[in-house]
Parts: sequence; C-alpha cells; structure tokens
Amino acid sequence: MNNATLRIGDPYDWSDGGGGGNLNAENAKGWSGAENILMQKECETELFDYWFCEARPQFYRARYAFILEGKDDELLLFGEKQVVPITSREDDPALSQLYNFYGFPYINPTDVFTAPSWVKNTIWYQIFPERFANGNPDISPENTLPWGSQDPKSKSFFGGDIQGIIDHLDYIQDIGITGIYLTPITEGESNHKYDTTDYFKVDPAFGDEKTIKVLIEEAHKRSIKVMFDAVFNHIGSSSKQWQDVLEYGKDSKYVDWFYIEQFPLINESKRKRHSKEMLNYRAFSFSEYMPKLNTENPEVIEYLLEVGRYWVRNFDIDAWRLDVANEVDQRFWRLFRDELKAIKPEIYILGEIWHDSMNWLKGDQFDAVMNYPLTDAILGFFATDTLNAQQFTSLINELHVNYPINVNEVSFLLLDSHDTPRLINKCSANKDKAKLAYLFQFTQTGSPCIYYGGEIGLDGGEDPLNRKCMVWDETQHDLDMKAHIKNIIKLRKKHVALRSHNMSWLLVDEKQNSVIFQKEDDDEKIVIVMNNSNKPSQLKLSESLSGRKVLDIYNNTPYQMAETLTLPAFGFAIYKL
Amino acid sequence: MNNATLRIGDPYDWSDGGGGGNLNAENAKGWSGAENILMQKECETELFDYWFCEARPQFYRARYAFILEGKDDELLLFGEKQVVPITSREDDPALSQLYNFYGFPYINPTDVFTAPSWVKNTIWYQIFPERFANGNPDISPENTLPWGSQDPKSKSFFGGDIQGIIDHLDYIQDIGITGIYLTPITEGESNHKYDTTDYFKVDPAFGDEKTIKVLIEEAHKRSIKVMFDAVFNHIGSSSKQWQDVLEYGKDSKYVDWFYIEQFPLINESKRKRHSKEMLNYRAFSFSEYMPKLNTENPEVIEYLLEVGRYWVRNFDIDAWRLDVANEVDQRFWRLFRDELKAIKPEIYILGEIWHDSMNWLKGDQFDAVMNYPLTDAILGFFATDTLNAQQFTSLINELHVNYPINVNEVSFLLLDSHDTPRLINKCSANKDKAKLAYLFQFTQTGSPCIYYGGEIGLDGGEDPLNRKCMVWDETQHDLDMKAHIKNIIKLRKKHVALRSHNMSWLLVDEKQNSVIFQKEDDDEKIVIVMNNSNKPSQLKLSESLSGRKVLDIYNNTPYQMAETLTLPAFGFAIYKL
Repeated sequence: MNNATLRIGDPYDWSDGGGGGNLNAENAKGWSGAENILMQKECETELFDYWFCEARPQFYRARYAFILEGKDDELLLFGEKQVVPITSREDDPALSQLYNFYGFPYINPTDVFTAPSWVKNTIWYQIFPERFANGNPDISPENTLPWGSQDPKSKSFFGGDIQGIIDHLDYIQDIGITGIYLTPITEGESNHKYDTTDYFKVDPAFGDEKTIKVLIEEAHKRSIKVMFDAVFNHIGSSSKQWQDVLEYGKDSKYVDWFYIEQFPLINESKRKRHSKEMLNYRAFSFSEYMPKLNTENPEVIEYLLEVGRYWVRNFDIDAWRLDVANEVDQRFWRLFRDELKAIKPEIYILGEIWHDSMNWLKGDQFDAVMNYPLTDAILGFFATDTLNAQQFTSLINELHVNYPINVNEVSFLLLDSHDTPRLINKCSANKDKAKLAYLFQFTQTGSPCIYYGGEIGLDGGEDPLNRKCMVWDETQHDLDMKAHIKNIIKLRKKHVALRSHNMSWLLVDEKQNSVIFQKEDDDEKIVIVMNNSNKPSQLKLSESLSGRKVLDIYNNTPYQMAETLTLPAFGFAIYKL
Repeated sequence: MNNATLRIGDPYDWSDGGGGGNLNAENAKGWSGAENILMQKECETELFDYWFCEARPQFYRARYAFILEGKDDELLLFGEKQVVPITSREDDPALSQLYNFYGFPYINPTDVFTAPSWVKNTIWYQIFPERFANGNPDISPENTLPWGSQDPKSKSFFGGDIQGIIDHLDYIQDIGITGIYLTPITEGESNHKYDTTDYFKVDPAFGDEKTIKVLIEEAHKRSIKVMFDAVFNHIGSSSKQWQDVLEYGKDSKYVDWFYIEQFPLINESKRKRHSKEMLNYRAFSFSEYMPKLNTENPEVIEYLLEVGRYWVRNFDIDAWRLDVANEVDQRFWRLFRDELKAIKPEIYILGEIWHDSMNWLKGDQFDAVMNYPLTDAILGFFATDTLNAQQFTSLINELHVNYPINVNEVSFLLLDSHDTPRLINKCSANKDKAKLAYLFQFTQTGSPCIYYGGEIGLDGGEDPLNRKCMVWDETQHDLDMKAHIKNIIKLRKKHVALRSHNMSWLLVDEKQNSVIFQKEDDDEKIVIVMNNSNKPSQLKLSESLSGRKVLDIYNNTPYQMAETLTLPAFGFAIYKL
C-alpha cells in the first residue's frame, strides 16, 4: 500500500443533503465537516501494517473511514461495512455516505480511559513479604526456618514481615524505587496469603495495623507509593465465611457467598489435592482451599467494596493490584472503580490478566494490567532465544499497537514475579542476557517493576523456588547487576524519551541477533543498541547516526559514531543524540 | 482453507507441566483439559469466511485457539499473539502453550448478554402520535389543520393523540401486531416531542396520565406490549431547566445540567437556525432548541433515572427506546439498565444506534439497537437496486455474524421510520418491491417493526413528508398490501423457523437478481424464493429441492417442485419442506 488517509468529520456538519448523522441517502453530498488527514506508517507486525494520525473532533463527535492507495494509484474507501473503489479523495459519492463510516458518536469524558498521572513515572519493586526480611522475630510463626537456610518449599515459613520492609525502605529508595507492590499482607494460612481468612486484619505473623501504618507513612516520606493485593476472586477455606458453610451447610448465612453445586461438600481431608473430579463447589483453579466468591451477591459485593475502601480510607494506600482479575465479573470491577476513585481519584487499579485485556481497559474498570505478553516477548528474545530479532520486533510492535497510547503509558511491565521463574533462571544464569532484558524493560513506555532480589542477582526457578529469602549479606550481592539496575533507573528518571511511547526501530539485524531502536520525545532522541548474541557484532549505522557526535549516557562519556558500531557479545549502548 | 478446528480447554486442567492458566513455559505438555472440535463453514462475506462450532466449558473457563488446514494439508495454529505452523492437531508443543491462546477467563452470568424472552416473538408497530389518529379534538392544539388536509410541514399540527391510538387498538391487533412503539408522548413544543419540556407529564395535546394508563391497560389486554421513547441526550429549550439557565446565567441552579462554554448564551432569535458557528453550548446536532444534557452530573443522572423508573413503576410500560443513545455516556446507560431491570427484569431496552453497536450490546447496556445496517442492506437490494444479489447476500451474512446469535434474536428490524423516507418511496412507488422487502424482513431473526401506515400503502419522502396523517378511509387503503402484511405476520408467528437464526442461501442468481434461502429450526425447514427483477425468472433448483413435494404456505396449497422454478417479475414463494 502506498499511503493511507483518514477521512473524518462531524456527522451533522452538512452544507447540502446531509441529515441526522445517520445518512444513508444515495444523493448525499456537501459533507462540509469532513477533512482528509494523511497518515504515517507507524510499524509492521507479522500480519499487518499500522498507520497513524491525530485528529481532534471540534464537537466531540466523529464519523470516519480510511482512503487507501494501492498499486497503480488505485483508491479504496475502507469503511465500517464495505470496501468501495473510489475515483478521487475529494469527490466521490462514497465519501459522503455515512452509513459506511465508523463512528466515534460522542466523546464523553466519563467514558474516556484516564489513569493516574504518577504511574507512568513510577518504578516498582515487588515484595513477597514472607521472604523479604524478618524485622520482628517475636511474631514469626512457630515453624519458622532460619532465614535463607534452605530452598523454600510450598509450605515453608521464614519469618519475613512488615517491620522487615520498613527496615529496608532506605535500601529500596537507594535503588531508585518509587513504588512498592506487596503481595497480600492480610490474614491467611499459607505463606503467600492468597487464601485470605480476614480481609480487614493484617496477618499476625506480618505485624498489625500499626506496623502497616508506619510502613505506609515511611514509604510516603520517601516518595514511595504503596500497592496492596486484592484477592477477591476467592477466599481462604479457613475464613469464618467458609467455615460457617462447612458447619451449617444449606442453613449457613454465607451459603450464597459461594457457588455450591450440592451438599454435603466434599470431605477435604479425604480428597486428593487439586483433583477436579470431586469438587462440588467452584474454586480458584481446582484448589479446594480457595473457594470462589459469588461476586454477584449484593452482600459479597458490599463486603468486598468495603475492603477496597477500608485500606484506602484508613491507610492511604496508593494502588490495588487485583488478583485473578479476569475471573471476577466485570460488573463488580466497575462498581469497585467507581467507589475507589470517589475516595482517591489518583488511585492506581492494576488487574492481573495475562492475555489480551482491552475489554478491561476501556476506562470503566482498570487503569492497567500486568503486561505478561510483553514479558513473554522480552524473555523470548533475550532470555530463551525462542524469538529471533525479526519476530521480536514484530511482536513488540504488535503489543504497542494493541492498546492505545494512554493505556500503554501506565502498563505494568515486569520480567518476573512470584508466579514465574526469576529472570536470571529464564536466562540460564547468563547475567549479560538478564542485563539486556532489564535494559529493554526500562526503555519501554509503562511502569516497570523489579521483583525483589532481582537487583542483586537472586535466582530461583518455578514456584516455590522463585520465592527464596532475600539475601542481606552484601558480600553475596551481585554488585555489578545492582549498579546496572541503579543506572538504568536513574537514566529512565532523567530522560523522558526513555519513558515515552515514541519508539522506532533503526536496525533489526537477524543474523547478528542485534537491534537498534530510538526513543524520543519533544526534547531529545535516545538511541539504544543491543547485541543479543554471544559473538561481537558489527552494526552498520543509518545515515542519521553515522559519523555523529553523541553522548553515551550509560557511561556518561562523549562518543563519536563511525559508519559501523562494534559491540561485544551481549553488549549494549545508550546514546543521546 | 480446507477446514478449521477449535482447540479449547480449561486453563487449569493439566496432567503435567501446566500452571496457573497462564502458562508460558516452553516445556508445557499434558493439557488434559483441551479438546479439538471440528468447525462448520457458516457463510462467506466480501472479505472473510466464517466458521462455527459449539463448546460448553465445564468449569466456566476456557482458553482457545484455532487450527487451520490449508493447501497440502498444511496446519497452522491461529492464536491470540501468533500464527504458528504445527505438525499435527494433537501433538505439537504449540498446542499447549497457553500464552498464545485466547481467553474466556470466566463466564459470570452477570456479564453475559441476556435479553427479555418475549422480544424475539414480538411484531412491532411504530406510531408517531401526532399523525396516527385524533381521538379527542377537544385537546388538539389551536393551530391544528384538518386531518390529512395537506402534506405535513416541519411545524404542522394535525391533532393526533393517545385516545386516537386507543380507538384503533383493535385495528392494530387485527394486523397481528404484538407491540407498539410510540415516539415521545411527554410534553414538548414540537409535533415530534423530541424537545421535551417535562419528562413526567403527558403532552396536553396528546392526553393525560389517565389516557396513557388506559392505553397501556387496553394494549396489555390485547397482549400488545408498549414501548416509550427516552430522549435523554438533550432537553427542549422551553424546559424549566434551560429557561432557568437563560434567566439566571452562571447563577442558575441548573447551570451544571448542561455544557455551556461561555455566557452570555447566544440570542436564539438573532441566530440562523442550525448554524454551528454561533452556538456556545453543546446541543443535539447544531439544533439550538435541543441543548445537550450533562449526563455525568449526579443530579441529572438521578433525574433521568427517575424518569426511567417512573413510567415503568407507575404505568407498567414494557420497553424503552433510547433516542440518540450513542451520544449519551455509557456509564449512564449501565446505571439505567441496572435500575430498570431491578424494577422489571423483562423490560426491553432498545438503543437508537445506526452503526456497528457491539460495544453497547455486551450485556451491560442495551438489549438491542435499531438495526439500520440491515435496513440499508434490504433497501439496497430490494428498493434502490444499489446492491446486486451477490453483494446483498454477502452483506446479510456479514450482519448475521457481526453480532452473537442471542443479540440478533432481539434486534429491532425496521425498513423505515420517522427518520427515513417510507419504504414505498424508497421503492419508487413499486409496490411489488416493497412486498419483497417486507417478506425478507419478516423472515429474519429479530423483532420486526412496521411504521404506521406502511401496511395500507401510506407514502412519504424525507422528513417531514414521512410523517403524513394516517389514512382511516378504508376505500383508500391498499388492501392487497394489507393482506400481504397480515399474511407474513401470521406465517412468522406460526413458523418458528422463520424467526430462527438458522439461515442458508440455496441459490444466489446474480443474472436474474434472484435468491433462494432456507430457514430452519429443529422441527421444520422453510424455503423462500424471491425474484427481485422486472422479468420472470427461471431458477434451477438444487437436488434437495428438485422434484420435492412441498407446501406453499403463503397460499396454503400443496406444490410439486420441478427441476426449475419459474417466478413472475418480482414474484416470490414460501415453501415448507
């Protein structure tokens, strides 16, 4: 395709023959409100080209279609219902037949996606409280193992707690972190606390309401935001609600809080763990200890909404991460958003969804989702070599265009979490690869997150090994990795271009498994060069770079570009033009 | 493409290597929950083929992708993120890599589209009350013209009222109608009443609360549903709210009910009607007498919700048609649905949207929209000859697959309305064409509507000519058309197959501009044959029809098919197999 043009206009702005914005008359003409705007090709993906332009409807309404120019100057109008050959861009009956135009019927602010402004500048640090630091041994569980004495098993306890986090806020701040995300801190039987027993109570092995208040105050003093984890899809089987159902059966006042197919409920002690055959109530996955909550029940709705409000109102948390967000009904999340934004308009609502999430990101539900598809793409190229440079850039392009720019800006970017193997393990312990992956993460638009310990090289495979105790002995820290992390965080904070959505590929070298891409905003252009291969690469520079004087901002030294650029195996560079 | 297979399964049902429904491990295998279901080709459109199959996830969750077989038995997995070549339908790593599968994360009933069960069996009749019948001359406006004495102008009054509708309910019932849709009956200055001055008051020229009560009771006695028109996008400029703003300006208590850019407001008397340049407040189109309501203002929200509730609670109406529904914010419509369905779960909520409306039909807002895209397709083929048989069937197929089956079943099907020229005018007065169009309308899934007078051949071009007085002198009725309408209504009621979504094209004859299609349900198959040309057509019958004994249900006579079927110009036939 040679070029693309957006044809857009106000549906009611006619000099002749128009009517009602819904025109289907054959004799339509004189659509004076319409204009043609030339589009720019933005990127290519495996299957499609993407074109872009900006338009701002004066009266908040628009109908639009696309004029495509193909071979031999052939013109097509690509509309909502038909693709129609046209004879000119300005004068063809089809250009005024609104029934074939897409509609932006009215841009009502309440329906427009808007996210808190601070999120796109935030650097997150995910903490699994049971494994971060033990600041108060007095409250550790009875069966607590000595800190870091062994690899964790699924039921191990090591005594991590809230005081431990408070004690290390300076450490966290020193890395450059401006937001901490805590997996659940409310009462639960497991070490991960996703089996909540009381949503209004801090787990006694973690601390109490006072400790949490101190944590949040101390974090806020350091300009660090605090995100909690809302586990609303299911409850722990030891909760008073489920216990009541176990005791009173059909007569329990909580019987409608759950989805129970028949009584008597299975006898858990006799059941093979996670066996789906015997479960006669709905649960998360096939986990009998996490019965699913009926979020269509008005009582449950009010209960969970109050949980949401409680921690914001009384503890001033800044964000909620929503566990298993896509299995809870969307009607509930709309209510949740309304309630929470009414209390704290700048609260960040982050859903855990691993697949395409456009449906939740239209302004009525979440501000963002955990961007696991981006995780997959980054790991596929840098960590596991399952994507080559061409596939990788195609996929990154696709992820960019899948969501609107303002959605991408607050997308939660992560390379690992308590649900995945750690990055360094995905990289088969190749630290250089991990450094490249982090660098790429920190040069993307969105809100990046580091999983605790990643900064000092903590390793760990699949759950439960990805939840090892944080290492506090500095002699065991990978200080080179830490310096890298601190440096790229510093650069990201300093250079708006690195955070901007504006990204273009200057070189995609499949043979040498290398890429060069540019990030830019109004004031600056930054070029990132990455050699993702175990051999040195020699990259031919484009005219825009060749021979240019630039600043190597990673090392803060001036650099004179030649015609080619040589990078060592797994080498990288960041130049400011 | 040779065939398509759906691969679908529970994300948590693994015998080996799975995890969390979010698997991105390379070594995934043993997805025991997955099964392959062969799909059937449903139809073709201009650009695509559509394939169909049914699947019912046992645990309300599913991940799915498609296996496509192309030339030379080549297999592709078509997933959410990538299209991947695979070596077999059962045994390829890609078949278990869930990160590339689409998700139905959880089927929560509250998020599932459900419409009132009665709608798909309803036959509507749209009434423009000022022009239907004058039952009470005492309340007619002062400037009322003698009934039908001239063609209407945009400000004419002829004295139609509610009593006039009551008087003719037997007439309406006799046609076979089971629902009446009234354009606004609340107080307004114009004859169309879309410029509401009081949402809680019946227009005094139409009657009063008592007359309306009688109308609804008498309609219900005849098993006729009643639909009102909710004009919530804008209010009339003579309303007390707008008048208050005109009087008190910034200090009006209603100032935030509107979108006012600056004071003083334009002087309407000095302004050229509909000139957009001078308007300093938002209005419907550029109509200064219909200022747009701020439906984000909690006061306005509560006011309009009470309007919605009031007429249902106190008058027991069965449906709301929402005027300019797509320009009001979607948050408001969600609240509206919640409120209304709480009072009357079986209420029908019908939005006026002329373009693709999937966004409003996901279960949280409307039950249906006015299906103008189908109107366009039917008119394009039968009325205006702008579509040939091939284009027409392609477009009909596209409209069928654009929405889910349960959405199509309650779609509001119309060929004309107070907003369009009448069908007979679109057909250039060719009555035979109009009969074909009606027949096609009444053999489609959905909820068909006749615009008052269409049944007796009332004509009329663009607004205001499409709002002529109903003719009550039977000698002037087109009784042949009326018999046609009554007959196809009777057939639609009798034969579930005609209402069913199950439709297939048996013949599309571009040369003779003729089509044969089949409608079927579990119990019967009905074949409709239509010759949309001004010459007799000779249609070659498929093996399934040729030589078959059938029942001509339009004429209720047995018929013996030959190898070909001859139809007169604009002829048609309906056979039950």
